[in-house]
Amino acid sequence: MTTYQLHYWPTIQGRGEFVRLALETAGADYVDVARQPPAEGGGEAALVDRLADARNPHPPFAPPFLVDGDVVVGQTAAILLHLGPRLGLAGSGEADALWTHQLQLTVADAVAEAHDTHHPIAVERYYEDQREAALQRSRSFRDARIPKFLGWFEDVLRRNPAGDAHLVGATLTYADLSLFQLVAGLRHAFPKATARALADAPAVVRLHANVARRQRVHDYLHSPRRLPFNQEGIFRHYPELDA
Amino acid sequence: MTTYQLHYWPTIQGRGEFVRLALETAGADYVDVARQPPAEGGGEAALVDRLADARNPHPPFAPPFLVDGDVVVGQTAAILLHLGPRLGLAGSGEADALWTHQLQLTVADAVAEAHDTHHPIAVERYYEDQREAALQRSRSFRDARIPKFLGWFEDVLRRNPAGDAHLVGATLTYADLSLFQLVAGLRHAFPKATARALADAPAVVRLHANVARRQRVHDYLHSPRRLPFNQEGIFRHYPELDA
Repeated sequence: MTTYQLHYWPTIQGRGEFVRLALETAGADYVDVARQPPAEGGGEAALVDRLADARNPHPPFAPPFLVDGDVVVGQTAAILLHLGPRLGLAGSGEADALWTHQLQLTVADAVAEAHDTHHPIAVERYYEDQREAALQRSRSFRDARIPKFLGWFEDVLRRNPAGDAHLVGATLTYADLSLFQLVAGLRHAFPKATARALADAPAVVRLHANVARRQRVHDYLHSPRRLPFNQEGIFRHYPELDA
Repeated sequence: MTTYQLHYWPTIQGRGEFVRLALETAGADYVDVARQPPAEGGGEAALVDRLADARNPHPPFAPPFLVDGDVVVGQTAAILLHLGPRLGLAGSGEADALWTHQLQLTVADAVAEAHDTHHPIAVERYYEDQREAALQRSRSFRDARIPKFLGWFEDVLRRNPAGDAHLVGATLTYADLSLFQLVAGLRHAFPKATARALADAPAVVRLHANVARRQRVHDYLHSPRRLPFNQEGIFRHYPELDA
């Protein structure tokens, strides 16, 4: 059995969490490298070394990246594209795999916009230095973008010919896991605005709950492997940005 | 032979341009639907109708989207994932296809950030209403992000075991076409900052020039099918945002 090596920042959920959820849900054999003890080849230094490895012909632009034997793949959605069929989380056949990926890319867009609510000016500067712009951007995100994204996923669930329990066909895919994580993150960061949008998205609410109660997901969420949301990640709760 | 239907806004290059470049370079049979006369089933109304088609089980979140027989696929990178092998623009084998896609996703990140330089606060509001924040965000984009993105692509070219003429192996892929478009767009929007960054990225400069002189690309760029950059698209030249 392959042991996957996931490389991601060890103190945040961030974009790596979408990969962790897929690996955990599939019961895959994996190591979250930077979260292992430095004495065992882990720690953030291991991630940074691997990121800077000059012998790698496929350098990742940024974490997360996955090492699977000879394959080194970065970009969250590309990692999931690689893992999906291997973990049984991409539906059946090429059309399902493509649709699952399209859904993932839309989750990724929502995630990038959620990040930019607290960093609308410069990713390399502190939130406090861009708070005024963050207040403005968050208003647009709350009023226009959260309802648009969650409303679209609700529409996708309603249109699924196999029923509204999953985004793709009748089985779990990584798109379901990622939508679960998006909802969890939005609820943490923007509890008021997200509750309003979810009032019109009952199938999304059910999907989130159903994913959370799957045995392996439940076990993971209640383990120390699941990092809590915090003020270093993508989904941050600044009360002044919610309303 | 399949006739692909591309649906995208008819007056801008935007994200649709990455798909147009792939179709044009491959000599594919395609229709740019919204740019056809309304009397022949074209026009923006045709795009809007198709986008709102309630019978489509795979609704696109936004243009561009591609119709290929029974397949309707949205998200630029997912469209290219679908088209890549069909157009001979994804290298050879699964590893090349994955790496090509990872490169595309990084182009997409750069494109999203380029867009946000003029819309850092709200996509639904005018540039003039967010000009102050745009000035700040553009400084970070010019000083930190353009060099980081172009420097990374330079590094990828230098590391390519098959030589620095292409991003993936020894043949043209949609990643090369997309990097061409990214460079063209950045040069249009941020001529000064981009020239500075490209001074340290000679292989990227050569790739851009080599793509532009390919016969089909050259013909396309000099045809009326290639829309000019303008102030409605993603890459906009506001002199005050460059330096």
